[in-house]
Amino acid sequence: MIDLKEKKLSSKKIFKGDLLDVRKDKVMLPNKKHSYREWVKHPGAACCIPILDNEIIMVEQYRYAVKEVSIELPAGKIDKGESPETCAVRELQEETGYKSRNLTFLTTIYPAIGFSDEKMWIYLAQDLVKKKSKPDIDEFVKVIKLNHKIALKMVENGDITDSKTIIGILWLHNYLNKKI
Amino acid sequence: MIDLKEKKLSSKKIFKGDLLDVRKDKVMLPNKKHSYREWVKHPGAACCIPILDNEIIMVEQYRYAVKEVSIELPAGKIDKGESPETCAVRELQEETGYKSRNLTFLTTIYPAIGFSDEKMWIYLAQDLVKKKSKPDIDEFVKVIKLNHKIALKMVENGDITDSKTIIGILWLHNYLNKKI
Repeated sequence: MIDLKEKKLSSKKIFKGDLLDVRKDKVMLPNKKHSYREWVKHPGAACCIPILDNEIIMVEQYRYAVKEVSIELPAGKIDKGESPETCAVRELQEETGYKSRNLTFLTTIYPAIGFSDEKMWIYLAQDLVKKKSKPDIDEFVKVIKLNHKIALKMVENGDITDSKTIIGILWLHNYLNKKI
Repeated sequence: MIDLKEKKLSSKKIFKGDLLDVRKDKVMLPNKKHSYREWVKHPGAACCIPILDNEIIMVEQYRYAVKEVSIELPAGKIDKGESPETCAVRELQEETGYKSRNLTFLTTIYPAIGFSDEKMWIYLAQDLVKKKSKPDIDEFVKVIKLNHKIALKMVENGDITDSKTIIGILWLHNYLNKKI
């Protein structure tokens, strides 16, 4: 069996902005040749599927990179030293105003494995109580509630296109089907 | 209702490598304040769910950004002037050696909507015939076949973590369930 691993020989910091940390590494390929890998270093993220009376609490927000308003599950970057669970609960409350007293870990995903090390922890968030939302400065979000069957239809119709949100909704559908 | 849209005021090219094209734009927020958006420009991609006798044809490859060997659906970047369908068929054959004579469009996804405009077209690929694989130089992939039920288990267990692959497998599960 071929060894697929690539070995890092050196690493160069290309750009460190407020959001992006871009690196270019020199690597040794499995065939011993040298090549370069450009990638975006990411602190990790957490995402919730907040469910209340058959409805998913979601956020609508403008996504500058794709120039579209997007319907998404609440999510955000992990702060330094923060656990994924704490981040999930914090982002949920900041974006929607809901606090969850029952968080269930579902899985981790790599949203963009070809060019970023971003790892995202996904949780089911239940037993929700309404508190106050406090979005970040420069973050404009609108909270919406969607029946989970309608959300699934919107995934199938292509009205929901964000990868973490598609995964969360399809996962919830399987999860609820198994409970019946 | 609040208008969520952000208006581009100016755009700066930060880095143009072999893979990454990084931009930093000055924008006007909904509250008329100015801010900056850093993002990765991407040419788009296509991904196949190649299914043959209840098995999904997949690839195992080392992903440098996350330092792991990853099990994924065949996928790749769209070449200049290429249609998503042509890209899907080409990448499938390059990576696995299979040619599809029956491609069904399922959806488009944004894998990393928070920092990249990457749009990925996902197709079900059926009526597969074996030809010859021809991976890119610097691309080392191993072709594997997974029964679709085992693939679903591997998603649920966290053994498959790539977002496009999770979406493809969950989507296929729903698709097959509806046909029964």
